[in-house]
Amino acid sequence: MKLHILGCHSATPRSVAFPSSQVLEVGNELLLIDAGEGMQIQLRKYKHKFNRIKHIFISHLHGDHFYGLVGYLSTLRLIGREKEVHIYAPAGLKEIILLQFKITQTDINYPLFFHELVNFEPELILETDKFSVTTIPLEHRIYTNGFLVREKPALRKLNIDAVRQYPEIETWAYHNLKRGKDFVRDDGSIIPNSELTLPPPPAKSYAYCSDTAYKPDIVPLIEGVDLLYHEATFLEADKSLAIKTKHSTARQAAQIAQRAGVKQLVLGHFSSRYPDESLFVSEAFEIFDNVDIAGEGKTFVI
Amino acid sequence: MKLHILGCHSATPRSVAFPSSQVLEVGNELLLIDAGEGMQIQLRKYKHKFNRIKHIFISHLHGDHFYGLVGYLSTLRLIGREKEVHIYAPAGLKEIILLQFKITQTDINYPLFFHELVNFEPELILETDKFSVTTIPLEHRIYTNGFLVREKPALRKLNIDAVRQYPEIETWAYHNLKRGKDFVRDDGSIIPNSELTLPPPPAKSYAYCSDTAYKPDIVPLIEGVDLLYHEATFLEADKSLAIKTKHSTARQAAQIAQRAGVKQLVLGHFSSRYPDESLFVSEAFEIFDNVDIAGEGKTFVI
Repeated sequence: MKLHILGCHSATPRSVAFPSSQVLEVGNELLLIDAGEGMQIQLRKYKHKFNRIKHIFISHLHGDHFYGLVGYLSTLRLIGREKEVHIYAPAGLKEIILLQFKITQTDINYPLFFHELVNFEPELILETDKFSVTTIPLEHRIYTNGFLVREKPALRKLNIDAVRQYPEIETWAYHNLKRGKDFVRDDGSIIPNSELTLPPPPAKSYAYCSDTAYKPDIVPLIEGVDLLYHEATFLEADKSLAIKTKHSTARQAAQIAQRAGVKQLVLGHFSSRYPDESLFVSEAFEIFDNVDIAGEGKTFVI
Repeated sequence: MKLHILGCHSATPRSVAFPSSQVLEVGNELLLIDAGEGMQIQLRKYKHKFNRIKHIFISHLHGDHFYGLVGYLSTLRLIGREKEVHIYAPAGLKEIILLQFKITQTDINYPLFFHELVNFEPELILETDKFSVTTIPLEHRIYTNGFLVREKPALRKLNIDAVRQYPEIETWAYHNLKRGKDFVRDDGSIIPNSELTLPPPPAKSYAYCSDTAYKPDIVPLIEGVDLLYHEATFLEADKSLAIKTKHSTARQAAQIAQRAGVKQLVLGHFSSRYPDESLFVSEAFEIFDNVDIAGEGKTFVI
């Protein structure tokens, strides 16, 4: 998996600071996560193909996380989209988008599906043969979900040298071997799978947690993920603001990362009050050492 | 007056081509005309103070002319706007904006007024002591207005050398002289105003016509304006597309300018199909010679 940041700032778009939006590359797909204003500009700028995006996840209905969506969906119509698009978002977004299509007399000519999120418990919202997406209920001023993306384990790899020592294993049997099954001879005797195959590369996982107050409840949900993107709107010096607005500090994000034993932490959703964003990293680093900051155009290989 | 272009391309925003949006500087005010996605990014980039904008004019409800508005209005709340904001737009925009405020739980803390446009005849929609704004009914796939902004004549200037030759003219009389009145002595005799004052600088006018099919009906409405911004989505080679989509070619825009006897023509709303925008100017130049193309960040002094 690869995470590409399109925007990672809070509140209002500026030409050097786009609001929340990112794409996660998993298999051949790009999952679009949040869609702040100007998101489609950033997609073009960083040369992500619109056509690879089928699933769009919106964490919550504050403008800096979705005002770029309606324009993007309109552009898809203009460029002749035919493949379906699925949007996973809190209830309310469908009404907003469809009202704008009605009043602008926009006929969407591709299949568009809204999956309205209303639960306050983690919920499996998408499962393909390559990955699954589960919500992470967050704590913000408005109903909000993070998203946990888990790759499915790939097939085991044939250990071809080992397999060739057994002439009775014909190629038709490879399919089951890759799926972890033992080989059973005609006489009922068994060659264990572990002798014939090698384990696949480990399945990766990614958790997106923005926007949220400090919420230790999420720790068991994101335990051990390979990459955690956690919002850090404020520094600890402004903790009272974080509490008031239900956001997190960089230190709090690091505490979540440390308690969940994640492999890497990326901070984002910075308030524009801080000219020096390296302060977010240095504050988090005191708690958790594998930490980086998001930045427009940055890619994190998971 | 000064016209500042924020965006002048059609359809979809790209980092080098923002959709329609511009500000007209008139007196101390900035009139915002259309508000394509990313408009607030452009306002900041070109250092136009949000606080100087009180009146916003939306030509029609296609996304490339208003998708940047809701984010801008949200930003005004964040930055503590107190002064009122007036929006002049086709019926429907109010519903779109208010639904988004409701669902995003945004409490606008400044007075916001919607003036819904529904007429198909020219209509005076704003009059201040400095200027007036009248609609220009256009012909497009959806209900659309252009806007005609006319400065009011400034006060006449005192010809102070002439005034001083008449000791009977005291300073309390200057107010009426600047307004063009003759001076009347106590004995009833008159000193004509023309002896005592100089004419003010000429009042300027600006017409915004986008989006529209070729519509000669507008000629009498915009006759003799100092600057005409007219859409030129296509070149004449693609005239059939212009007819089909109710847009204009550069040549048609020039024909309107020529017939209306405007002083200067600026072309905009270019389709992205043309890599060389100078072709718009050369096509229009065959009909009308004082022609220029719009461009992000360009300023036209009227």
